[in-house]
Amino acid sequence: MNWEDLARALTVPTSSKIILLVIDGLGDLPVEGRTPLEKARTPNLDRLANKGVCGLTDPVMPGITPGSGPSHLALFGYDPLRYQLGRGILEALGSGVEVGPDDLVARGNFATLKDGLVIDRRAGRIPTSENEKLCRRLNDNLKPSSGIAVRLYPGKEHRFVVKFSGPGLEDGLSDADPQKDHKPRAGAQPLSPSAAKTAEIVNAFLDEATDILSDRDTANTILLRGFSKYPALPTMAELYRLKPAACANYPMYRGLARLAGMDVLETGAETADLFRALETHYADYDFFYIHFKKTDAAGEDGNSGAKVRAIEEIDAFIPRLEALAPEVLAVTSDHSTPCLLKSHSWHPNPFLLVAESAFPDDVEAFTERACRRGLLGRFPALEAMPLLLAHAGKMNKFGA
Amino acid sequence: MNWEDLARALTVPTSSKIILLVIDGLGDLPVEGRTPLEKARTPNLDRLANKGVCGLTDPVMPGITPGSGPSHLALFGYDPLRYQLGRGILEALGSGVEVGPDDLVARGNFATLKDGLVIDRRAGRIPTSENEKLCRRLNDNLKPSSGIAVRLYPGKEHRFVVKFSGPGLEDGLSDADPQKDHKPRAGAQPLSPSAAKTAEIVNAFLDEATDILSDRDTANTILLRGFSKYPALPTMAELYRLKPAACANYPMYRGLARLAGMDVLETGAETADLFRALETHYADYDFFYIHFKKTDAAGEDGNSGAKVRAIEEIDAFIPRLEALAPEVLAVTSDHSTPCLLKSHSWHPNPFLLVAESAFPDDVEAFTERACRRGLLGRFPALEAMPLLLAHAGKMNKFGA
Repeated sequence: MNWEDLARALTVPTSSKIILLVIDGLGDLPVEGRTPLEKARTPNLDRLANKGVCGLTDPVMPGITPGSGPSHLALFGYDPLRYQLGRGILEALGSGVEVGPDDLVARGNFATLKDGLVIDRRAGRIPTSENEKLCRRLNDNLKPSSGIAVRLYPGKEHRFVVKFSGPGLEDGLSDADPQKDHKPRAGAQPLSPSAAKTAEIVNAFLDEATDILSDRDTANTILLRGFSKYPALPTMAELYRLKPAACANYPMYRGLARLAGMDVLETGAETADLFRALETHYADYDFFYIHFKKTDAAGEDGNSGAKVRAIEEIDAFIPRLEALAPEVLAVTSDHSTPCLLKSHSWHPNPFLLVAESAFPDDVEAFTERACRRGLLGRFPALEAMPLLLAHAGKMNKFGA
Repeated sequence: MNWEDLARALTVPTSSKIILLVIDGLGDLPVEGRTPLEKARTPNLDRLANKGVCGLTDPVMPGITPGSGPSHLALFGYDPLRYQLGRGILEALGSGVEVGPDDLVARGNFATLKDGLVIDRRAGRIPTSENEKLCRRLNDNLKPSSGIAVRLYPGKEHRFVVKFSGPGLEDGLSDADPQKDHKPRAGAQPLSPSAAKTAEIVNAFLDEATDILSDRDTANTILLRGFSKYPALPTMAELYRLKPAACANYPMYRGLARLAGMDVLETGAETADLFRALETHYADYDFFYIHFKKTDAAGEDGNSGAKVRAIEEIDAFIPRLEALAPEVLAVTSDHSTPCLLKSHSWHPNPFLLVAESAFPDDVEAFTERACRRGLLGRFPALEAMPLLLAHAGKMNKFGA
């Protein structure tokens, strides 16, 4: 019996409300002695830390640097080692492509073919505008066959997402990519006999697309990687009897929330829009996931000044969460993005939880170091959702 | 998906270097208020603790006292509950006996038989030189039978390793040892029907050896314990893409390192020899395991003064590790050996890690108590290798 079984067995619907604010990539390393979170003026987050209980979470396990997919799944209570999301589905979600159970998606590259060899797997990183034109041309000229619809969604430079829609598609396929330049085009190979039919469909599409682009000198063929079907995750309604909503304005996080069965609220691009969406729909749901992106972006840029400013920006919105008086308010990070590394990392994340039933510890500031001394200790992010549900009074006793 | 799967999927070779110094049996309990590690003057270890990040590790799980095999496997990233090593294989590897997939090995004792009873299971601890003569005599006179070759390898005093080589051998056998003096000789019993044939071969060998030695008054029979086949461990090269080397001068630890696929460097018996070997071969490998034994020996003797001196001895070598400037330097213990207990114990071990990406905590001394407050918290020793690899930049992101 694991956490998921316990959740199904013990959770009960109640009127209590949970707000989970995810400050993306918040955790960091000290630069000149202090982390951005330690440098930032955060009176509101500090007040919450003081009032509630704190700890540090490991997204997957110590030492493992997670992508956004695994780190968010863990926070939503899904074991990230059990539910693995293909690159294709994440790219599709990140690009705002709607994916359903009958769809197969993959990441695509425009590439350059010459004398039967792929001489540039990125087609010289063509401008995004040319990519858009090529996708339109292919979408307009591809002939539907054997009941399978194919559609390309342009991304940046040479990258796009392709979606195959129809019954019986499987994702057990090798990448259709020669992996190195100066090799012939490579078709997708079925990884099991049952995927043979899908491989045929994919390879026929690759030939047809290359044919349509054959009047061009560059960006005249395509490569596909990371074939993925829509992953079969149980919804948060099934697992936790929650009615969950997401306030997120980046496609990746909207997509991840949708995968977990959340309603994704309409919202503008500004931080204030996230909070307006929350306030507007506060009566309609009992779980709210709010995603704030700027901290992660600053970390990826190695810009600790921008990270401090982003932290101060989100801190200023905390009173609007408190004003709603949710039964449970938690603030954490999906993973660390240290400015030193300019990338996601494996370092643990500060976590705070405010609820009437939270045992207040002596943590007085919301920082990596202070949270280390919190009463929650260091724990896997997968244990966050059990805590949120428990403090919201949404879980029955286990055993008599 | 477990750590091993993650390691295979995510590790990448890089030029960065990892040094793991294992101070055997270091952890202890306070005697008159202080542990040997707290009493010892350790300016160098304390400096590392101050500079890096600290924690406490549990070798297998809280409450479980590990042997050297499981505790080292855990540190090398092998789940000690999954990979269980027989005593025979550890003794064989530790004695430098080459073991292959068709071999069965066991630890042997020369013993003294009189009037049909084993009256001394250690044959009065005969001199090693006599042991060597007896092994030679047996090796020269044993008649090969049923395609199984048998060979004895002398150890210290009355101890030796025996290797049976041939197809179909199994290790599911009870010890061929009466366990107490003044009992009759005991044959090996098969623990499953499929091991019956192997038991017959082993017991025929025991009879033949006793027959060959029957002109002697002492050391005139042999006992065998810990029958083991060669365990199929993936190498550290396979799992982590590392090129690992061991600096260890005790057979057991050289054997364990070899099992994990490390090159075991030539080294003398002194502590300084370990560091000379490291310095000589520093350019040739990217992972170094250094094993220091004296702390464990002092703990086993219950000699806290000797343990303090051993700790101060190894502390003085720390600057030679720092001089090499490895990307990751970790110091820990495989298990605790409290002087109070005069044996291995289940108590957690101090752990420190120095790397550019380590979050420095406020631990200022390398002691059991100080490490408790470290940012790494208390964690299974199996998570040490993920941390070492992560801090060395040798692991890709998990998921997108």
